Amino acid sequence: MVQRIGLAHGEGGELTHQLIQDVFVKSFGHGVQTKLDSAILPGMIENMAVTTDSFVVNPIFFPGGNIGKLAITGTVNDLAVCGAIPRFITAGFILEEGFPVNDLKKIVQSMAEEAERAGVHIIAGDTKVVEKGSADGLFINTTGIGELREAPCPNPEEMKKRDAVIISGTLGDHGVSILSARNELGLMTDVTSDCASLNHLIQELTDEIRGIRIMRDPTRGGLATTLVEICEDFQVTIELEEDCIPIRKDVQGACDILGFDPLYLANEGKIVLIVDSSLADRALTILRQHVFGRDAEVIGQVSSLESGKLLLKTPFGTTRRLQRLSGMLLPRIC
Amino acid sequence: MVQRIGLAHGEGGELTHQLIQDVFVKSFGHGVQTKLDSAILPGMIENMAVTTDSFVVNPIFFPGGNIGKLAITGTVNDLAVCGAIPRFITAGFILEEGFPVNDLKKIVQSMAEEAERAGVHIIAGDTKVVEKGSADGLFINTTGIGELREAPCPNPEEMKKRDAVIISGTLGDHGVSILSARNELGLMTDVTSDCASLNHLIQELTDEIRGIRIMRDPTRGGLATTLVEICEDFQVTIELEEDCIPIRKDVQGACDILGFDPLYLANEGKIVLIVDSSLADRALTILRQHVFGRDAEVIGQVSSLESGKLLLKTPFGTTRRLQRLSGMLLPRIC
Repeated sequence: MVQRIGLAHGEGGELTHQLIQDVFVKSFGHGVQTKLDSAILPGMIENMAVTTDSFVVNPIFFPGGNIGKLAITGTVNDLAVCGAIPRFITAGFILEEGFPVNDLKKIVQSMAEEAERAGVHIIAGDTKVVEKGSADGLFINTTGIGELREAPCPNPEEMKKRDAVIISGTLGDHGVSILSARNELGLMTDVTSDCASLNHLIQELTDEIRGIRIMRDPTRGGLATTLVEICEDFQVTIELEEDCIPIRKDVQGACDILGFDPLYLANEGKIVLIVDSSLADRALTILRQHVFGRDAEVIGQVSSLESGKLLLKTPFGTTRRLQRLSGMLLPRIC
Repeated sequence: MVQRIGLAHGEGGELTHQLIQDVFVKSFGHGVQTKLDSAILPGMIENMAVTTDSFVVNPIFFPGGNIGKLAITGTVNDLAVCGAIPRFITAGFILEEGFPVNDLKKIVQSMAEEAERAGVHIIAGDTKVVEKGSADGLFINTTGIGELREAPCPNPEEMKKRDAVIISGTLGDHGVSILSARNELGLMTDVTSDCASLNHLIQELTDEIRGIRIMRDPTRGGLATTLVEICEDFQVTIELEEDCIPIRKDVQGACDILGFDPLYLANEGKIVLIVDSSLADRALTILRQHVFGRDAEVIGQVSSLESGKLLLKTPFGTTRRLQRLSGMLLPRIC
């Protein structure tokens, strides 16, 4: 048993999974979804979905966004992928003594703008300040409340062989933009973060396509970790075609130089969905009409309804099994 | 205009008020209650109340509780004082690399226990980890969702002259317990934090007493700041009788030595309420039957429906005006 928290406990991979199982699920029990991400609340307050996330991204400003925009898009997307219409967001700020008020205003302003774009209302907030050195600038927690749509929610129980796996665009843009903004590695690219609210795109999709099995936003841990979780949770095997996975050339180049695998890098404006194979073309068409889905591709399929593995077919004809992100990749990516 | 965040911006007093007005209300607009505390949501998702809070208390463990228990009680009480039945809580954790897993388990366990006592469900969570030195141990954000009761909510619009101001127990216990736990000032007392979930107590009260004008939990900024806000928001003048305000002898002693005023110290298990004067005795009886209300007292009255001032009548027959907490008192009290 691990005794102390390591950075890798926050990366959304294997160690995060263990920590959640070992600490939170044990105490909070079945009330908490094991993924501890969005909770769907049947009962008293009808048809509500709830999600919470803390944002600790470093640096706070990066190409394509900042911690505030990211907090809104991340929360909106968490709700949207579980089939809810995002309605309300709360925002809790932890500020380090000495943080520039002008930076705070910029961040808060971009939260307000992104909330307006997404059509959500910021309804409650809180501010705490800690001494210089007790936090790194600014952390934000956002909790989102959404309303489950009347249209059928994604239903993973209906997954079947040959269902298509679709990604809405290029992978790894957010991860590489953060790396580039850190400038720690002497790497400068013009890659910007893909962070965007996808709820309108997702609503168009779910309005039209009634055979969506599951949708997820592949953030921390990347596409590979997200799909490994789906394979394990529903005991299906998914085969990805490496050749079909859209990755920007400069993202791939940066990854090659730095030794990262774009399948494990965080995305903040992408969804991966599994749909009935007969609806894959229609789904692609809808996605590609949208600015945030124009690079959508079918990247693989459900190849079997057993054994719960994620497989990658390489261009050389070989197949390898992908695991959850394990250990350290990029701390504080979101 | 202030350029950088100071610790006093987090103390719940005048500077917090200015920061909220200047930064958050400007960007988030009217959707946000100016107090930015609980939001009551009419409309789509009916009769829901929502609150969010970040907890950064230092030290994490203190006599009578820890940061986890405090997060639950604080969130439960925020919902209960606005007339809602607390139902669901989300929890976001920001952990410093190296934080002991055993401490995390203890904290999470006391959250689970306190949630059970209060009858709320912890439904979603999130964990982020930052590098050693980028946070101080552990911060928790909790967001609570409650259901507005059918019984009439407190209605501040009905406030009238001679309405009674009641406090549910002794003031300053939480503040002094934190001071004592810090041991910075060479002060050791056996005062324990009053942190407790008051929702059951509040439910009994609101079931019986139909003339409650307003209820608040006097946390950061203490009783004085809470009442100043009520006086300003509703333009009433309140007169407190200093002699009637219940304060433990050891709390008063610690305050005398250290130069703190218990009226400004944080409480985490107290409510202040304003009720029709004819119902004050009945309210006291109900409160005193409850373990968390046994030291309840009438401490003053609404003396006029104008000018929005909080006044304190001293035992010497003089009267002085109390203001919002201004500047630094005790950072990281919750």
